[in-house]
This record gives sequence, C-alpha cells and structure tokens, in this order.
Amino acid sequence: MIVLFTDFGAGPYVGQMKAVLAARAPGVTVIDLFADAPQRDPRRAAYLLAAYAPWFEAGTVFLAVVDPGVGGARAPIIVEADGRRFVGPDNGLMAIVLRRAAAPSVREIAWRPEALSPSFHGRDLFAPVAAMLARGDAVAATPRALESALRPDWPDDLAEIVYVDAYGNAMTGLRAATVPPAARLRAATHRVPPARTFSDVPAGAAFWYENSCGLVEIAVNLGRADAALGLAVGSAITVEN
Amino acid sequence: MIVLFTDFGAGPYVGQMKAVLAARAPGVTVIDLFADAPQRDPRRAAYLLAAYAPWFEAGTVFLAVVDPGVGGARAPIIVEADGRRFVGPDNGLMAIVLRRAAAPSVREIAWRPEALSPSFHGRDLFAPVAAMLARGDAVAATPRALESALRPDWPDDLAEIVYVDAYGNAMTGLRAATVPPAARLRAATHRVPPARTFSDVPAGAAFWYENSCGLVEIAVNLGRADAALGLAVGSAITVEN
Amino acid sequence: MIVLFTDFGAGPYVGQMKAVLAARAPGVTVIDLFADAPQRDPRRAAYLLAAYAPWFEAGTVFLAVVDPGVGGARAPIIVEADGRRFVGPDNGLMAIVLRRAAAPSVREIAWRPEALSPSFHGRDLFAPVAAMLARGDAVAATPRALESALRPDWPDDLAEIVYVDAYGNAMTGLRAATVPPAARLRAATHRVPPARTFSDVPAGAAFWYENSCGLVEIAVNLGRADAALGLAVGSAITVEN
Repeated sequence: MIVLFTDFGAGPYVGQMKAVLAARAPGVTVIDLFADAPQRDPRRAAYLLAAYAPWFEAGTVFLAVVDPGVGGARAPIIVEADGRRFVGPDNGLMAIVLRRAAAPSVREIAWRPEALSPSFHGRDLFAPVAAMLARGDAVAATPRALESALRPDWPDDLAEIVYVDAYGNAMTGLRAATVPPAARLRAATHRVPPARTFSDVPAGAAFWYENSCGLVEIAVNLGRADAALGLAVGSAITVEN
Repeated sequence: MIVLFTDFGAGPYVGQMKAVLAARAPGVTVIDLFADAPQRDPRRAAYLLAAYAPWFEAGTVFLAVVDPGVGGARAPIIVEADGRRFVGPDNGLMAIVLRRAAAPSVREIAWRPEALSPSFHGRDLFAPVAAMLARGDAVAATPRALESALRPDWPDDLAEIVYVDAYGNAMTGLRAATVPPAARLRAATHRVPPARTFSDVPAGAAFWYENSCGLVEIAVNLGRADAALGLAVGSAITVEN
Repeated sequence: MIVLFTDFGAGPYVGQMKAVLAARAPGVTVIDLFADAPQRDPRRAAYLLAAYAPWFEAGTVFLAVVDPGVGGARAPIIVEADGRRFVGPDNGLMAIVLRRAAAPSVREIAWRPEALSPSFHGRDLFAPVAAMLARGDAVAATPRALESALRPDWPDDLAEIVYVDAYGNAMTGLRAATVPPAARLRAATHRVPPARTFSDVPAGAAFWYENSCGLVEIAVNLGRADAALGLAVGSAITVEN
C-alpha cells in the first residue's frame, strides 16, 4: 500500500503522481490520506504525519511531499521507521516519525529520472521511488546521518494547531497521552475542558478530546471550533494542569 | 461495489475508511459519491441519499456516514432496501431509502471491532461491516423494528434545498415526479419556471428542472443559482401549482 | 488508462462517472487529473488540456467534460490526436489538442444509451464511450470535418491565466517554449521576471517559470501569486520582450 500525504490540494498534482504509481507499480493500492496537510509547512505537517502513520501496518510506503524548497538544496530521502517507509524531502517532514521510531534509518536517494523538473519532484522523483519500494525493487540510495533529519530543536509534541478539518475541528500536535486527562487547554482567551466525544457535551459547547489518531483535538459539539474559538493552523495552545 | 456517502469533506477520514476497505475487501470497487453531504444533517442527507441510491444496481453496499451523534446512543444499523445494503448510524439517514423500498429490513449491528474509538465509527465499525457485506461474509446483527428508523414525522419529499453543487445549482428534496411539470417554484422572493435543461433558457435565467437523479433542481444558465437567488442548504421552496 | 478532465468540482458527478467506468471497463485504471478545470469555460480549459495531455502515453483515453451547453446542439465527439483519444463535447474543448497534433481526426458519436438525461452526458454518454474505447470496443461514430472543432479564431497560445492552483500559482495558456527565456511578463500593474523554480528567488518574490507541464506559470515563493498580483482565471498577461 502507498499512502499519499501532501499539501497539493485540489488540482492535477495528486492525479499526476497516481498516474506514475499506476504505471510503475500496477495493482498496488494507493490511498489518499491528506492532500491538505499544512501548506508549505513541513514542521507542522511533521506532527500530523507522525500521528497518522502508526495507524497503517508495517510495509506501508508513505509518499510524503510538503516541499516548498523543491528544486533547491534539500535532499530527497527514504526513511525507514518501525517497518514503514517514507519517501520525500529532507526538510523536517519526517523528523517526528524518526524521533518516535525504535531503530530508524535515513538514506539519501541517489536514483534520478531521465527528466527531472525543478518544481515537481513529487511526480518525477518521489513517486517513482515510492513505486519501486512498494514493488520491492532496489533503489539507489546512500546512508545518511540521522541527525540531519531529526530536527533536535523541535519539541517532542507541538502545542499548536496543526490541522483544521471540514467540521472546523482543530487538531493539535500534542499526543493526548502526554496531557493529563483532566487538564484544561487554553486557546486564545478560551479555556477548554476535556470530554470523551461530541455527544457527551451540550450543543455548542467547546471541549478537547483524544481524537481517533491519538491527538489532542479541540471541537465544538454541532459547531465549528475554528470559528467559535478563533483557531487556525499555527494557533498556540496551553495546557493548564 | 461499495459507495461512500459522507459529510467528511476533504481531509484524512475518507482515505482512512478506504484503507480499511482495501485491507478487508481487496479488489472490491469503491466509489466516492458524496464526501460533502449536508454536514451533521442526517435529515436533509436522507433525501439526497434516497435520490442517488436507486441509480446503483442491486447488491451495492452504501457506507453512509453522516453521524453527529457518534459515540452516543444511536444504534449502528444495516438496512436492506430493494436489494441494496446501507451501513451507518440509525439517526434518520436511511429513513427515506427505507420508506420508498418495497420490503425493507433493518438490523442492529452486534459485531464490534477490537478497538472502537468514540469519534470515528466510520473507520472502526461501519467500514469493516461494509467490507464484510461486500465480500458476502456474515455480520453479527439482530433484527430491529422498522419504526425506529422510518422517521414517520418527516415528509415523503422535502421542500427545501438539500445540496448545492460546485456550479451553484441547488438540489431540493423534492422528486420531480411529485411536482406538476408546469409548476413554478417560489424560492425566497423569486419565482422560478421549469425548463428541460440549461441550454433551453437564456444566459443568466433561473429555472428548475428534473436533474439527472430525478430531483427538482434550481439552476441559472451560465450562472450560480445559489448566489442569484440566495439559496443554501435548508432554504425553503414552495411549489405554485 | 482513462483520465478525467472536468469542471465538476466536489460532489457526486465524478463518482457517478467512475461507477459507469467501473461497470463497463472493469480493471482499467482511472486517474483524476482535473475536476476543477475552468468552470463552464471550454476555451480556457482547452489550453490546459492541451498542456497536460502530452504527459500521458499514447493509448490514454481522456474523458473531457466542460460542457455548459449539455443537452443542446453541440455534438458529442471522439478526437484522436497523437495516439491519444479524447471523448467529450464539440465546444472547443479539444481545439488546441487538435491543432497541435500531427494527423488528428474527429468523429461524431452516433451511439446513444438507452436513457440519456438532458443534463449529464458525462455519465450517460461520454463515460460509456470512454469505457468502450479503453476496452478496444468499436463505437458507432461518423467522420466529421476537422474545421468544426479547430476554432481557427482562437490563438495558438493564450496570454491569459487559465488555472490557479491550491498554492495560488497562476498558470497561463502560454507554452514556455514560445516565450523568450529572459522575457518579463506584465500582469496587471506588475512586472514579473523569470526564474528556474521557487527556491531560486527570495521569499515573497514574484517570478514566472516553465512549470512541470511546459506552461508559463506565475508564482510567489512561499506566497500566493493570485492574491499578491490580483490574478484569477481570465486575467490578461503581456510578454515584454
């Protein structure tokens, strides 16, 4: 299985990558996970990717492209972490996956396509490599020190909003397991208590809960947390113990 | 074939369900029908689902999740209606499908996964059950009285806008077969005459027509009916005979 | 492979076409290329389609539906151009593909389905024909003069914005090969210099570059060109040699 994690949005880019995958790895299942990861923001996307990846089984290949520096100096890499493979740019996007893995490795991709556009390595470089990995083919690559990809200056959990979904629910980069279950969150001027799920609070009430991938998520029952609390990707959150 | 009908929007939730379907029912075709059904609104979504479902052949499994009460008291059900199966919450979403079927049945799903999140039964419960049905596997379930799911207080056809598409065309919950062909509709302060299709009226003219799934739909040729007539999901419509 | 190129947006229409393709051409790969081609605008869509099509190999079937005149007089056609096939309305959408091909042909589709709605030929007529072509089945069709589809009054390259992507990058209908590499573009009151790719210019700087399909595209590094330069589909561009 190949899982797509990008900030490409609507438009042709996801389909162009899928055409490459269909040609090079026919029969392999391709899943659209995120096409709306934090745009041009590998740091916040890293916490989202690390939260969603463990839900997929070992062997899964993640084609992970949030790549504002495409065509520039950042290296193309393959990360192996807990049996999963991640293909994409070395710009921090895989940093949190790496940090949480048992015995991860990073390789720099040496393979190059016949034609490499300077603005769409997702199509020209990363998709072919993901297809090779999914087929079990060897990919020319060289070992690379972990440190380059680990971003030691980034926190283990990020006390910011990293994603707002179609309902206006706001995911943070905090794993719920790292937050006291009875803690309140402060978001802008609002204090938000915990709850188990939407139907446990009155309509219109704000709460935080452990979402289905283990992240602290701020929501409003039958309403939009983003509008009600003034939240967007990047908004800071404080845990009040 | 498994058909997805949800209010999940863009983002990871549709893909996470598809990953479950790919693992549990490999090789089964999965079709994205609606990911933008009326949000948190099983009542209006029910009229949309009932209009679109008959277009699919018998045997189709609909994974239908508009589920604002997820994790609460509403039961998970399997509906059989005219040879099609529907998996989702018993919150009215299947009420109109049931009402229009010849000899429908409702069963409450007794099967439970090893891990059931309180906020994403689409991934954890409904998708696995849809996969089982698509494969022809037995699903632990108990008979349930039809009345619970039928919503007798809801009308047979809903004189409201239930969906606005990307062109600004506004679908009602009225089957065209129930409206006199020459009737005019009143929508807010506007009176809207019938037409066969877009190219039969001048550019900028509003009209209603029987859409490709049999619903009364209000449109503006080469324009947006939602903006021109002030229509949104929930707007009331009146038929003027 | 069948490639979808439409202005359908989110909603049920793409999925309904895919259900037809799955039933009539099982096992054939279907790729979503554009569901957000210039809306109701076959002229601008024609330059986008012609730029993206050559990237797909010979034999590909394009199901190309930007069809504001659906149900009216425009003919349904099959275009063959450089080994690729295009199915859709004869409203100019295939004009630029045709003009750039070596020995193209146009046929009018004579086949009709049992039921043909007046508003969704994509589902009822074009998708079945695309499936037949992808399977290698014969389609009842009659030769048609090229002139009807060629739109000789349209320019070879269109000096307008034809697409704005999720990043705010604005594609023109100009092939980069037709523009001097050092030329500046004038867009509204802005003068835009060329660059190789995003990371070659400072953050916030506007530039134009040859995008990954060969079009002149206007972008802002780490910003939105549409907002910064006031660009939208239809904005005129001038090349300053």
